[in-house]
Amino acid sequence: MDREIKEKIKYLLYPRSVAVIGASRNPRKIGFQVVYNLIKDGYKGRIYPINPNADEILGLKCYPNILDAPDDIDLAMIVVPASKVLNVLNEVVRKKVRSVAIISSGFSELGKKDLEDAIVNICREHKIPLLGPNIVGIINTNNNMNLSFCPHLPFKGKITFITQSGALAIGLIGWTWASRIGISKLISIGNMAMIGFEELIEFLEEDRDTEAVLLYIEGVKNGRLFAEVSKKVSRKKPLIAIKAGKSLRGAKAAASHTGSLAGNVMLYETAFKYAGIVSADGLEDGFDKALALSLQPPLYGDNLVVVTNGGGAGVLSSDYAEKFGVPLKDLPKDLVNAVKELIPPFGSPNNPIDLTGNAYRDDYIRVLDTVFRHPWVDGVVSIYVHAAITDPVEIADGIAQVWRNYRDKPITVCMIGGREVQVANIWLRDNGIPVYPTPRRAISAMAALRQYGLFLERERGNGGMVRNKEISS
Amino acid sequence: MDREIKEKIKYLLYPRSVAVIGASRNPRKIGFQVVYNLIKDGYKGRIYPINPNADEILGLKCYPNILDAPDDIDLAMIVVPASKVLNVLNEVVRKKVRSVAIISSGFSELGKKDLEDAIVNICREHKIPLLGPNIVGIINTNNNMNLSFCPHLPFKGKITFITQSGALAIGLIGWTWASRIGISKLISIGNMAMIGFEELIEFLEEDRDTEAVLLYIEGVKNGRLFAEVSKKVSRKKPLIAIKAGKSLRGAKAAASHTGSLAGNVMLYETAFKYAGIVSADGLEDGFDKALALSLQPPLYGDNLVVVTNGGGAGVLSSDYAEKFGVPLKDLPKDLVNAVKELIPPFGSPNNPIDLTGNAYRDDYIRVLDTVFRHPWVDGVVSIYVHAAITDPVEIADGIAQVWRNYRDKPITVCMIGGREVQVANIWLRDNGIPVYPTPRRAISAMAALRQYGLFLERERGNGGMVRNKEISS
Repeated sequence: MDREIKEKIKYLLYPRSVAVIGASRNPRKIGFQVVYNLIKDGYKGRIYPINPNADEILGLKCYPNILDAPDDIDLAMIVVPASKVLNVLNEVVRKKVRSVAIISSGFSELGKKDLEDAIVNICREHKIPLLGPNIVGIINTNNNMNLSFCPHLPFKGKITFITQSGALAIGLIGWTWASRIGISKLISIGNMAMIGFEELIEFLEEDRDTEAVLLYIEGVKNGRLFAEVSKKVSRKKPLIAIKAGKSLRGAKAAASHTGSLAGNVMLYETAFKYAGIVSADGLEDGFDKALALSLQPPLYGDNLVVVTNGGGAGVLSSDYAEKFGVPLKDLPKDLVNAVKELIPPFGSPNNPIDLTGNAYRDDYIRVLDTVFRHPWVDGVVSIYVHAAITDPVEIADGIAQVWRNYRDKPITVCMIGGREVQVANIWLRDNGIPVYPTPRRAISAMAALRQYGLFLERERGNGGMVRNKEISS
Repeated sequence: MDREIKEKIKYLLYPRSVAVIGASRNPRKIGFQVVYNLIKDGYKGRIYPINPNADEILGLKCYPNILDAPDDIDLAMIVVPASKVLNVLNEVVRKKVRSVAIISSGFSELGKKDLEDAIVNICREHKIPLLGPNIVGIINTNNNMNLSFCPHLPFKGKITFITQSGALAIGLIGWTWASRIGISKLISIGNMAMIGFEELIEFLEEDRDTEAVLLYIEGVKNGRLFAEVSKKVSRKKPLIAIKAGKSLRGAKAAASHTGSLAGNVMLYETAFKYAGIVSADGLEDGFDKALALSLQPPLYGDNLVVVTNGGGAGVLSSDYAEKFGVPLKDLPKDLVNAVKELIPPFGSPNNPIDLTGNAYRDDYIRVLDTVFRHPWVDGVVSIYVHAAITDPVEIADGIAQVWRNYRDKPITVCMIGGREVQVANIWLRDNGIPVYPTPRRAISAMAALRQYGLFLERERGNGGMVRNKEISS
């Protein structure tokens, strides 16, 4: 892609001024919702509604044509019907707008490939990056920009989610709040007529607000470019991919949905492995892993320790540690002896360490501190099964207090319970500790940190420039 | 096991009178909590606290010795220290108590096998079923019996959960409320000195309050008996197993936790398959599948249809349907044509049927009704990705309204969203429809219904007596 176009991609995500072409006063129309969401969610730039039939929309002065807007425009968001897009685009070009995104549908996804090509050609000729068409919009929590018809901003954080499914973008916003999964940017890429995963991933390499990039992929435009760009960016920050259309039937559904060639599963898996992309098993696993990778350092080395107050949860953790490629090992003797001093005789001082159901906050603190401090230990999964006698928030606070002193070693937490553990979960996440409801998911998230650590170790061995051990935060 | 002992197992779960031996007035003691929980949660039988040093506990008259209790005792729950259990048990025998359970620990799990054997011998000699020792207690929501130190009753329903991990029993109670996973009985089986999975499963065959049995297993006592009993019971109601200790390390942890010989994974998998037991991948998957199997009829035949309002969720569903053994097929032409009339031109009338994000309650109703009514269709997975324009409760109500007319065909639902879909989820579950947050989990639950349906088809082919197609409710 043309360098000038690439350099302007920043205007899609950090525009100082946005024109909404097709802004409307009818609350049922997307042209209304986009303007409303920008205002309601506190977008920090300037907004120019464009509509020849209105003087004012939601208190903002409205212009009949983008050429009338009294300002440079960083981003034109187009929401007019497909048949009018070409005309509008010619005005956008004359206005020297820096970037364009198109929410409108009715292009290649309905067989109108020619129309889509015409639009791309205009943008390419004038060096304008084009996102879409057929997107739900662009969200950036870092400048409170909800330039979409998603009803809310997602929960703010460090994950950028790029999705080929617009519906998932909308549907998952509530989920990010309920699960406190922090999102930096949410980018619906629609038909990927010009800009696809490749260009956005490359842009995000230098985005300071993004610590991990989660992708929902049905098909990419250019497999080789995708793999190369992803590998380059992976050295700086982790990429996680939910690949849909893996089955024959799924590939057929993807063709009908986004027109994507879902391609050969093995090709994608090979590309992911080559590029250091962490593969996810569906939506939940994708967000689980993205959460861990956005908050925690990679797991360097594979000396993983599980600390639990429930024996059964410990057994399950051992199983999943093996299944997910980070098998538990015997602890060094001195560590076993040190732990033995801290737990009841009917507990277990080896890996998984079983504190027993009588463990209070101070027991967690003492054992976790002993474990984290030991040089043999590379990472920890801490498990709490809600017990009648203990307050999960106390336990969570104890865990957070210890980890604060060992931030170069990753931790994931499992809290088993219902409403009792909800506040504890919030406490942990707000302290940068990813927490999950089952041993399986906490171990799977830790395995993702290991997978990414392994990639970085390999790249370092190859002389590549890789991120430092400590995460910035 | 002796027939007389087997016949008395009902007294462990439906006692008309319970003596708590070791009842206490000290709220920090388990002997207090057990009596308190019985009263607080509304146990419908008679309660006799036994303690030589108290006249009254929580308003109940206290007896110095079980022999003084002025009533027949169906169940003696023992909470005195291990060293005193033998003495107490001799009095229990003299009182002709019908069944015994022991919460106290300090037996084979701490190497005191002789003491445990002595207790078993006494019970066996006097034909008394013994549950435990080293259990957290017995819960039966059908008679409001919280005979345990679990702080609450679980959410009431049709799943009986038998667990070798007591901590999980306690920890998961809150989860059952948060997830509205309905529990009939929660049985902690501790050291399984006499009664194990085998005997309880057999008892549950005729339990009218149990529609599905979920097992957390580290190791069973008698593999052959377990397989035979399970196969017999599976013909009447589904069994689901979470097998822990599958890895070498997990098996070692299990040995340290419950003293179980976790055994060969393949042996267990073979036994599960033979017996029609649905295997679960950890806790979440176990409850997901148990929920579907407790609420829905099995999936007979494998013509599964997915109806979605999100294309991406449809693609993922197709992938998981294939992965979990219920691959989606093309719909019959007449069904495709009928659906085509009901959806927008940019939707998809084939499997997965994509209603598009513009689908309202009535669209779901019309399409689901058309699909369910078609004789080719065996079961349906209905997916809703929260969209800005629709009310999930309306959609949920529409789904429930249609399914009410087709209760012999199973349905599972996926609702993607945050708090917006919470009430819809409650609505669905209270209408007997299992609902999950991702396509993966909704499809996995449907695959469990298929797996069980396949087992019943096979058994029927072999001339076995199997349950009817329609679920009782």
